[in-house]
Amino acid sequence: MNYDLNICLLSADEQQRRIERLRLDSPALICDNANLFYLTGRVFCGYLFLQPGEAPQYFVKRPSELKGDNITLIRKPEDIGLTCPALGLELGSLAYAQAMRLQAAFGATELIDISGNIMRSRSVKTLLEQQLLREDGIRHAGVYARIPGLFREGMTDIELQAEIERIDRLHGCLGQFRVNGTDMEIHMGNVITGLNADTPSPYDFAMGGAGLSPSLPVGASGEEIKPGQAVMVDMNGNFNGYMTDMTRTYACGTLPEKAVKAHQCSIDICHELASRGKPGADCKQLYETALNIAREAGFADCFMGHKYHAGFVGHGVGIQINELPVLAPRSKMVLTEGNVIAIEPKFVIEGVGAVGIENTYICTADGLECITNAPEELIQLL
Amino acid sequence: MNYDLNICLLSADEQQRRIERLRLDSPALICDNANLFYLTGRVFCGYLFLQPGEAPQYFVKRPSELKGDNITLIRKPEDIGLTCPALGLELGSLAYAQAMRLQAAFGATELIDISGNIMRSRSVKTLLEQQLLREDGIRHAGVYARIPGLFREGMTDIELQAEIERIDRLHGCLGQFRVNGTDMEIHMGNVITGLNADTPSPYDFAMGGAGLSPSLPVGASGEEIKPGQAVMVDMNGNFNGYMTDMTRTYACGTLPEKAVKAHQCSIDICHELASRGKPGADCKQLYETALNIAREAGFADCFMGHKYHAGFVGHGVGIQINELPVLAPRSKMVLTEGNVIAIEPKFVIEGVGAVGIENTYICTADGLECITNAPEELIQLL
Repeated sequence: MNYDLNICLLSADEQQRRIERLRLDSPALICDNANLFYLTGRVFCGYLFLQPGEAPQYFVKRPSELKGDNITLIRKPEDIGLTCPALGLELGSLAYAQAMRLQAAFGATELIDISGNIMRSRSVKTLLEQQLLREDGIRHAGVYARIPGLFREGMTDIELQAEIERIDRLHGCLGQFRVNGTDMEIHMGNVITGLNADTPSPYDFAMGGAGLSPSLPVGASGEEIKPGQAVMVDMNGNFNGYMTDMTRTYACGTLPEKAVKAHQCSIDICHELASRGKPGADCKQLYETALNIAREAGFADCFMGHKYHAGFVGHGVGIQINELPVLAPRSKMVLTEGNVIAIEPKFVIEGVGAVGIENTYICTADGLECITNAPEELIQLL
Repeated sequence: MNYDLNICLLSADEQQRRIERLRLDSPALICDNANLFYLTGRVFCGYLFLQPGEAPQYFVKRPSELKGDNITLIRKPEDIGLTCPALGLELGSLAYAQAMRLQAAFGATELIDISGNIMRSRSVKTLLEQQLLREDGIRHAGVYARIPGLFREGMTDIELQAEIERIDRLHGCLGQFRVNGTDMEIHMGNVITGLNADTPSPYDFAMGGAGLSPSLPVGASGEEIKPGQAVMVDMNGNFNGYMTDMTRTYACGTLPEKAVKAHQCSIDICHELASRGKPGADCKQLYETALNIAREAGFADCFMGHKYHAGFVGHGVGIQINELPVLAPRSKMVLTEGNVIAIEPKFVIEGVGAVGIENTYICTADGLECITNAPEELIQLL
């Protein structure tokens, strides 16, 4: 059993690099698990206190066994015992009641929202983070290589998904699908086929699906995978706390020509965006390029959905699945060296299902480096 | 594909019953997915607006196809167009920034925290909710019956967990493990063996475990299941949006006498608490009864942990895994007819693992009704 009790699992340099990128002007308390993991390399129950120019301080509720400098064990936030007139908090994710309690505990007269600082910082991955994502991509592709062997005639979407989940977990996938915000919910990813690809979902994922229950209305719905249908697989790539995002499409029998061509259009879009993506590239223009290619191929009506259209073609990934930047019509972002983005031009073909691919890319000085390397063409199941 | 487009999947009576139990004094906007599911029977992207004495109003962002009375399609909360001097919000879970935005959108001068109203209401299950939980319990027990057949000599904890997850999913488990609050994270549940049972976790679950990564430090850690070790299985019972909670312990080879006796002590505690539990029973006294039985059997030192001790022996379950009431030393709650609670007296035996059981019970007028019915004794794996 590997259980390192150090409060910070990052090297001092690596931690300092990440903290500096936050560009904090005032003291700040980090509460969110995703951000604690980003800034310390681990999740613990407690808080990280950052003050410009000072060493990080840790206020730990659990586990009490954690070791390192500047650790104070506390039972409740009122035990922290610090006073800050202006306190930075993750107001985009922290619950209102907890923010009020922390404001009182710190005697703060002003709360400053540092959610944007953290999301911007996290959108530019350090070399270590890029390496973790590359490792994820290799393991993720290894799982996908097993998928054709898992299919049996007459299977439902959820039966196939259960087999993929098992292989994913046996390859070391943590299972957890971390999302930013409370609106998005999903379990391990999305396997979608046939008419279910046309079912609208409340969630802002690229593809919808009815799901198995109105309590989690997304993804596989128990639909049988029939000859002539496409099966789109967009499953969890979280093997180390970072997530790659990857989609491949499988053909059950012979697909209609429209589906085959739309799938090729998705590959073409990925390749075109991958060749245009580099530091300084405009995220809005990348989206428009994708839409133009779809339009020229005659697939504008089913681009990113048929009945319902998702409003983006790509998004940052990292500790969470929905990070910055976003490739969308009104995006004002440009690509930066160190961004890691998933590009997922997908098409819904009525009655057939969804087709297309998704890859994750690191934005390097030389352009986009694909880290989810696996065959992109339609893969035959039957 | 079953896809009901009605905005409310509850009967009008059932919905009214739940809304009345909230005992709202002022208008309130429901944002949280768990609470939307509770009050409408479905998750959608948008808001439910409740005003004492008036019909519920729905402000829907997605899916736009939803049908029913009093639905307004919106793009953003500012489109709601209502004014409320005092607005009830789920301030215990709603992000600070979102609460501020809603306050401005409603021109509210006062925000009222309705989180407590909802948690109290949800803690008393309606007859329909009880029936859904009973169905869960039957399906949950069906999955557990398959576990001995999944074990192979030399397996690790995570390999066994992956096989259980597969069976759980093939039996219709949704996978999702809904928790109240942002501090608790887990994937599908906890399979724990050997020394890993002694590893402290940041999360407030009954048992810890190192997990596979410091980004999700709970549960199975890749430990090989060896003869002489106990394997505690506490896996997901969410088949319909409601969750039963159930633990059984499996013996790999012959366990030391202390482990066998401690396991029997857990069964004894469950039976004793099940016979004392009824409407009006004091939750603190139920905890003390459990601790006393453990103490008399000589197991106080390993009750609810060995190095680290969880501070409760039972908790409400329902849409989320950590509901009210709580059976804990300082609990001020009494059992009410309609409460659904999990009782989980567990013991950590050094080097062996964790032993004990967990059942879910409905508090009826006649006492506690066990809804996770399956053999409770140690189950032999090898």
